[in-house]
Amino acid sequence: MPKPSARSAAAPASPIRRLYPLAVEAKRRGKKVYHLNIGQPDIPTPDAFLRGVRESDVKVLAYAPSPGIPEAIDALHRYYAEWGLNVAREEILITIGGSEAITFALTVTCDPGDEVLVPEPFYPNYQGYARLTNVEIVPVTTSREDGFHLPPRQDIEALIGPRTKAILFSHPGNPTGVVYTPAELETLVDIAARHDLFIISDEVYREFVYEGTHRSILSYPEAGDRIILVDSISKRLSACGARVGAFISHNRDVMAAAFKCATIRLSAPTFEQLGLVAFMADPDHRRVVTDMIREYRRRRDVLCQGLAAIPGVTFRKPEGAFYIMIGLPVADAEAFVRWMLTDYPGQETVMLAPGAGFYRTEGLGLDEARGAYVLQVDDLRRACAALAEGLELFAKAAAEEAMVGRG
Amino acid sequence: MPKPSARSAAAPASPIRRLYPLAVEAKRRGKKVYHLNIGQPDIPTPDAFLRGVRESDVKVLAYAPSPGIPEAIDALHRYYAEWGLNVAREEILITIGGSEAITFALTVTCDPGDEVLVPEPFYPNYQGYARLTNVEIVPVTTSREDGFHLPPRQDIEALIGPRTKAILFSHPGNPTGVVYTPAELETLVDIAARHDLFIISDEVYREFVYEGTHRSILSYPEAGDRIILVDSISKRLSACGARVGAFISHNRDVMAAAFKCATIRLSAPTFEQLGLVAFMADPDHRRVVTDMIREYRRRRDVLCQGLAAIPGVTFRKPEGAFYIMIGLPVADAEAFVRWMLTDYPGQETVMLAPGAGFYRTEGLGLDEARGAYVLQVDDLRRACAALAEGLELFAKAAAEEAMVGRG
Repeated sequence: MPKPSARSAAAPASPIRRLYPLAVEAKRRGKKVYHLNIGQPDIPTPDAFLRGVRESDVKVLAYAPSPGIPEAIDALHRYYAEWGLNVAREEILITIGGSEAITFALTVTCDPGDEVLVPEPFYPNYQGYARLTNVEIVPVTTSREDGFHLPPRQDIEALIGPRTKAILFSHPGNPTGVVYTPAELETLVDIAARHDLFIISDEVYREFVYEGTHRSILSYPEAGDRIILVDSISKRLSACGARVGAFISHNRDVMAAAFKCATIRLSAPTFEQLGLVAFMADPDHRRVVTDMIREYRRRRDVLCQGLAAIPGVTFRKPEGAFYIMIGLPVADAEAFVRWMLTDYPGQETVMLAPGAGFYRTEGLGLDEARGAYVLQVDDLRRACAALAEGLELFAKAAAEEAMVGRG
Repeated sequence: MPKPSARSAAAPASPIRRLYPLAVEAKRRGKKVYHLNIGQPDIPTPDAFLRGVRESDVKVLAYAPSPGIPEAIDALHRYYAEWGLNVAREEILITIGGSEAITFALTVTCDPGDEVLVPEPFYPNYQGYARLTNVEIVPVTTSREDGFHLPPRQDIEALIGPRTKAILFSHPGNPTGVVYTPAELETLVDIAARHDLFIISDEVYREFVYEGTHRSILSYPEAGDRIILVDSISKRLSACGARVGAFISHNRDVMAAAFKCATIRLSAPTFEQLGLVAFMADPDHRRVVTDMIREYRRRRDVLCQGLAAIPGVTFRKPEGAFYIMIGLPVADAEAFVRWMLTDYPGQETVMLAPGAGFYRTEGLGLDEARGAYVLQVDDLRRACAALAEGLELFAKAAAEEAMVGRG
């Protein structure tokens, strides 16, 4: 029997997939599981978006134009203008979520075997997109102690080789919550210019900034033709299931190559593009997002307050997105997350995403876990209480086991 | 400035893209253009589907499960059962259109540089998917004279090399309309077994059969683990813009690899999956499709009748799908298609898809064009009239030019 290809067989299976059945099983046993492990917001999708879908006047659901429905491109064009970002309509390609935009970015910048620098810890699906497009990710290691800000310039440049084609990062960062300073972005822009690299900036969390100011990579005109902006309405419209994202570049050759990719897959889904059109037509659309961000800030603060009270837990208050990398007083965070689902005696428990899955470098992140503050503040408080008790009991259980081992 | 990758820069741009602006320009000059060049049906999308979208009860548009919304998988499961095809729920992966299913099939069966046999002429996007996944298409040439049926077994086997991993075909065929006989399918199944290949059968036109009977590749249990079925609701539900397709295999390793691909891209669009659920819940759903197929058969017959009356035009009545490869009495079909848009004096003109774009082998299909019978029969009659007059005038113009050349 023929075997699946090496690339597909080797594509990473996330630790979350291994742990999920345990969460299902815990719930079957009547436990309440607080899912801090996944970035699926609970915030209702804006009414205007849903009305746009429901009241759409579609008779023949035909292929949408490959670059996107013109009105949806107009809507994004208006959106960037509201952010003071200068993007022409022909520089916008609507993609099937940010996922497709990243796949296109890797495909357009790299041939098989080419390399892309990515600050780690990073969004694990980057590894999947890279694997499927036969691109190598070279990690630029950052640490919790530094709040996941970038290492010195020479440490980054030391990783650049003849096959390095691009620097890819999410900004604000998933899973780190980091918001880069203008100095950091200028360094990246300068490195890219000196080594002739593309810059792929994944800004799907653009609105989610609680400290400092987010500068889009598009606000660096000197990087002009090197920039590929990856975007998505998933988070800012609480519409992850819409699968509407964007690939943006000032570089005509890059856009021509990306439009070819888009032509081949025919079109992005229609109804969700119409939802975006209706949302942007709503005069209140900015307030809807602002209100949502206020709620996330509150959640961040509540979660950080809760975590700060747990002995041995370390973290830096995240500046953006809705994630936090939590240092846990355990040697193996995955074992602890598993234990919380299988052995923790409390009636309410917590599921986190083990940290190692966010690092490319073997052995990093073992004592970390990512939390997503996508729950109501009361639930976050209860999740923290379970986490605190769990850590205490887990340490006791480990100590007892060690005693038994010695005995 | 860094350059786009070789794979993306070299991805094929279809001749249609070159010709399209000419059609737009013709319409601007007040001409009516009959678009026989694209397989975009004009049939209304079934009401039940559209109601499923509009009446859906979505509050948070969350990521759908990566393999598909369970109710949508159930709907497809029921669909295959209605066709007498034995497919388990866990053998169904809902994809973002048939496009994604083919991309997954190439990714899962091939590593970069591997080869796939494809009978030509073939759907040009196959070349695009192959290019982007770094797979080589090795064409199995078929001809209009043989109604695009397969060549003898030894001619196919002669093309198989150490890197051949799969045979991919659309069945019923786009652009050929061919429906393979059971003997042909058995030969393919046997070749696959002997050379340890996967069989990727793209059956998105399953219902569109006017002569003989379509046998799905799934009805060959002996091919079991070698089979990947590519499917889509685009054509049978007249819902090309839905982007809902399917990847199906009995092979557990293949499904595991495909599920990884699906996890990485997160999910297929939600509302359109809900449309499929509602459509399959409509007790009348089979009649809706049967009525549509009856209309296509009528169109096929009207188009064939019209074409048969044009001197010099040759074709074999297509057995399925909604395409016909038309032999034209011209040396360069693309030049003729262009002339019909730019120079033809009639008030109504026709756009066809030049044949060469459907062949991998250089120099084939130059005197052919693909027509899609996706228009009302009256429009098809008028399109034939324009085509007949156009061919006559084009021949005269060519003759006059030849005279001038000699004079």
